[in-house]
Amino acid sequence: MHVFDQAIALSVQGEGSYSGATSPAYGNMVGPFGGVTAATVLNAVLRHPALLGEPVALTVNFAAALADGAFTVHARPVRTNRSTQHWVMEITQPDAQGTESTVLTATAVTAARRETWGVDDAPMPAVPTPEAVGRPNMAAPVEWVRRYDIRIAEGAIPTTWDGRGDASRSTLWVREEPLRPLDFASLAAMADVFFPRVWLRRATRVPAGTVSMTVYFHAGAAQLAAVGTGWLLGQAQAQAFRNGFFDQSAQVWSQAGALLATTHQTVYYKE
Amino acid sequence: MHVFDQAIALSVQGEGSYSGATSPAYGNMVGPFGGVTAATVLNAVLRHPALLGEPVALTVNFAAALADGAFTVHARPVRTNRSTQHWVMEITQPDAQGTESTVLTATAVTAARRETWGVDDAPMPAVPTPEAVGRPNMAAPVEWVRRYDIRIAEGAIPTTWDGRGDASRSTLWVREEPLRPLDFASLAAMADVFFPRVWLRRATRVPAGTVSMTVYFHAGAAQLAAVGTGWLLGQAQAQAFRNGFFDQSAQVWSQAGALLATTHQTVYYKE
Repeated sequence: MHVFDQAIALSVQGEGSYSGATSPAYGNMVGPFGGVTAATVLNAVLRHPALLGEPVALTVNFAAALADGAFTVHARPVRTNRSTQHWVMEITQPDAQGTESTVLTATAVTAARRETWGVDDAPMPAVPTPEAVGRPNMAAPVEWVRRYDIRIAEGAIPTTWDGRGDASRSTLWVREEPLRPLDFASLAAMADVFFPRVWLRRATRVPAGTVSMTVYFHAGAAQLAAVGTGWLLGQAQAQAFRNGFFDQSAQVWSQAGALLATTHQTVYYKE
Repeated sequence: MHVFDQAIALSVQGEGSYSGATSPAYGNMVGPFGGVTAATVLNAVLRHPALLGEPVALTVNFAAALADGAFTVHARPVRTNRSTQHWVMEITQPDAQGTESTVLTATAVTAARRETWGVDDAPMPAVPTPEAVGRPNMAAPVEWVRRYDIRIAEGAIPTTWDGRGDASRSTLWVREEPLRPLDFASLAAMADVFFPRVWLRRATRVPAGTVSMTVYFHAGAAQLAAVGTGWLLGQAQAQAFRNGFFDQSAQVWSQAGALLATTHQTVYYKE
């Protein structure tokens, strides 16, 4: 079993109730990598017997740092239409007093997608190939980074923290290590693979953590399966930093140039 | 009382439970303008006695068309930290059998924002002034459009539906009509003021409706109050259209050039 599948694994406790546990393989500064937590809560939807269709939208709000150890995931389909379904999810953990308490809230929309007219309006940026960028060029200060082969073509983590940053855009190749065929869960996780934009923009390393993240899935299961273990190209950029929060807008393409997902987050930062 | 305040008005029924009603003044093709519904659900948070801070993120999922008439809004703070608070909201209406049923799910993050380093990384595009663009240049096929003065500087609704569209970006000035000082609720509504990108991109009018929408608020109450009844500049663009859904990324600036909000949505379209 791939380490990612181990990390997002869930045991059914009852209708729409699952138990999971944090994985040391995806450890972050505090608690696990948020991308894997997002993938885990999506996994609860994907495994639900009432599921209609495939993910279209996922929003995850990180209400508190997950403590290392066991947690409970709740997933509930609150509205099922002819071709769309709306989900409300939650992760809970016992607090210091032992009371089960919310650490994450989430919503999702799934849909039976149809053949329609379509077009990509965000062309993949031209960057050197993953082989030309080479590896590794993203330092791994935390464990989860080692689960990915990340090759930053533009906007690398500053090597000198001199306060001289002037841009917030990164463009990078990413795939799992070891290789694993792409699916909705791994795409959700990789939508969160970018390091905090504030580090790049300021060339200053301040505490930062994602507060809310949304992923729009533009590809269906068959298109993701066709990408297989191929490289993804991600581009992320901030638009505003103010009063302790900044946003990030990002796109994720297949190496062949199909826009697989667009994603947004708002991130807390200190000072 | 301004027509917008009437539309988003709520009566307290109990702790975190409110009754509201759709407003004919904001009528859309089916049900009310989604922006006003988003503002109403945010209003339930803003009026809640347990509120900490101001809105940072709002996600609204339109699970079903609101029927004209009364509805119930539920807002619950599920996690309160030292400086952030996480909310889960819902709108319910009786279904055909009279059972109270979910028509909208939502989450929000509020926070006590602090003075920090900050910068805008998405400069306001250079466009002619609202006076130079003139009015009205957006047709009002539905009632809610009359509640806004919308002046499209770029990417107007096609006047000829000839299937010859080639871009999905619109840049427009907007303010309420009659004038009303800007606040979080009206900003949330104006984040949804753009007509469907698919109409522009295809120059083809197909049924379309927002499924999920997220707003990140970059400005606090004082900065919004300083904008007052001034113009906002909005720019919206799609990134991918595929299998019945497209996304929209948008920015909303004050006329002075401050980025007040960034917003994203995924939208259903037919054929």
